Amino acid sequence: MTINLDKYIRDKAEIINRALDECLGGRENPLRPIMDYSVLSEGKRFRPILVFAAMESLGGDFIAALPAACAVEIVHCFSLVHDDLPCMDNDDYRRGRLSTHRKFGEAEALLAGDALMMQAFEILSRPSCNAWATPEKKIEVIFELSAASGAKGMTGGQYLELIKSSAEVDELLLAEVHRLKTGASIRCAVRIGGILGGASPQDLDALTEYGESIGLLFQIVDDILDAEKDDETISFSSFYGVAEARGKASEAAERAREALARFSGKKELLIQIIDFLLKRKR
Amino acid sequence: MTINLDKYIRDKAEIINRALDECLGGRENPLRPIMDYSVLSEGKRFRPILVFAAMESLGGDFIAALPAACAVEIVHCFSLVHDDLPCMDNDDYRRGRLSTHRKFGEAEALLAGDALMMQAFEILSRPSCNAWATPEKKIEVIFELSAASGAKGMTGGQYLELIKSSAEVDELLLAEVHRLKTGASIRCAVRIGGILGGASPQDLDALTEYGESIGLLFQIVDDILDAEKDDETISFSSFYGVAEARGKASEAAERAREALARFSGKKELLIQIIDFLLKRKR
Repeated sequence: MTINLDKYIRDKAEIINRALDECLGGRENPLRPIMDYSVLSEGKRFRPILVFAAMESLGGDFIAALPAACAVEIVHCFSLVHDDLPCMDNDDYRRGRLSTHRKFGEAEALLAGDALMMQAFEILSRPSCNAWATPEKKIEVIFELSAASGAKGMTGGQYLELIKSSAEVDELLLAEVHRLKTGASIRCAVRIGGILGGASPQDLDALTEYGESIGLLFQIVDDILDAEKDDETISFSSFYGVAEARGKASEAAERAREALARFSGKKELLIQIIDFLLKRKR
Repeated sequence: MTINLDKYIRDKAEIINRALDECLGGRENPLRPIMDYSVLSEGKRFRPILVFAAMESLGGDFIAALPAACAVEIVHCFSLVHDDLPCMDNDDYRRGRLSTHRKFGEAEALLAGDALMMQAFEILSRPSCNAWATPEKKIEVIFELSAASGAKGMTGGQYLELIKSSAEVDELLLAEVHRLKTGASIRCAVRIGGILGGASPQDLDALTEYGESIGLLFQIVDDILDAEKDDETISFSSFYGVAEARGKASEAAERAREALARFSGKKELLIQIIDFLLKRKR
């Protein structure tokens, strides 16, 4: 049976949007409107979809990955809120509407980001909704998410990008910034799906390399699509030029395919995701 | 045997300081100097000491509570870094030296705070140091910490304080802000010690009420000690006046003592902490 990836993404995004709405907690929370605005927008939901896809490729039921998928997406959304702040990228717009701090104020956005980060870990540890995984697996998921999001992952990447001027950019730094800033969270999403799906060590290794490769692919294509904007100091397209960057994207796609050759689970969905990322226009 | 609380605090603070230094991770982390500056300062280490005291009152070995005590303190330190930012309290100094953003820059402080928050959960879930508690207990600790620190706890309290003007302050709001902003993290520290010490439901209830009461006591005394500064809009001493605030502090101390009357563990240390908080000059 051939999988229709467009439909898969649409269906899963709808499920994740409903679950995010539910898991953000009660309406009596005064920060809730700001958290809603930051999370319940037109996101691609790429990371939670990767959690589901990895889980399903191992024969698991994606429903059990729903709390983890929500937590991964909430951490991603928190990072966008803080990244847009005046002291960081100072972005007035995000996904076609006002950024959180432009809509609600700077302190409000800071605190909503902090609250979202805590919410992610609360979702993963709630006693009221705990049948989705064993305590051992939950701890593994919490470790993956916290390690991928902190100083040795996403936040570290944001920091490197902040302190390095464009004059300092070389091949190594470019790769390192993106490995941390975007790559770590995409790798983490795939690994969490693998862990929850009960991957063997060999399969988890293969999924990890797949995740690293599509993380790189995702970022290169993002940089190519953003090439006209040229407000990024550390970008694959501005460093290599668009043509060479396209070559790098194809290489990353090829590495992702090679990783799947060593994967014992179902591959079709994961392969389709590679092609989707390579060809996406937005 | 009578416990010497001053010595207890000194000894435990030294242990926690060493453990914090160790658990902040490798020196290759470029954010590490900013994280160090924000954490390895002259903090009172009140929250980790409460984790130890609750654990020991149940006959537990405080060493097993070390990762959790570090995580609790790191979350506290992150909240101070974000609280000092220009869009929040805009404080240039903290504990007698430049605040993190005045020392390193605003974006740097924002990201170091984010990294600290993630570090706390990484410490609680690390596979390389995992014998301190069962996975079930770790999940309980992670839930306590995330719930007490997010929108329904510390961050929610910071937000309430931010959006309410002094004209709106009444008895209920004052209590609510402090219950969330400071109370939740102190209650959480005591509960985590109780959970790790294997408290029965009854003992955990008693410890919870003890924690709530000393959290309130701590905040009222803080407000009295800060009364001359009068830069706080929402403060017990400015709302009630110093004399009446002192009465409220004694009432909170009394409620903490009453809670301990229902506690089956060792009480001396916990009682001494009440007296210490009531009489402290700084």
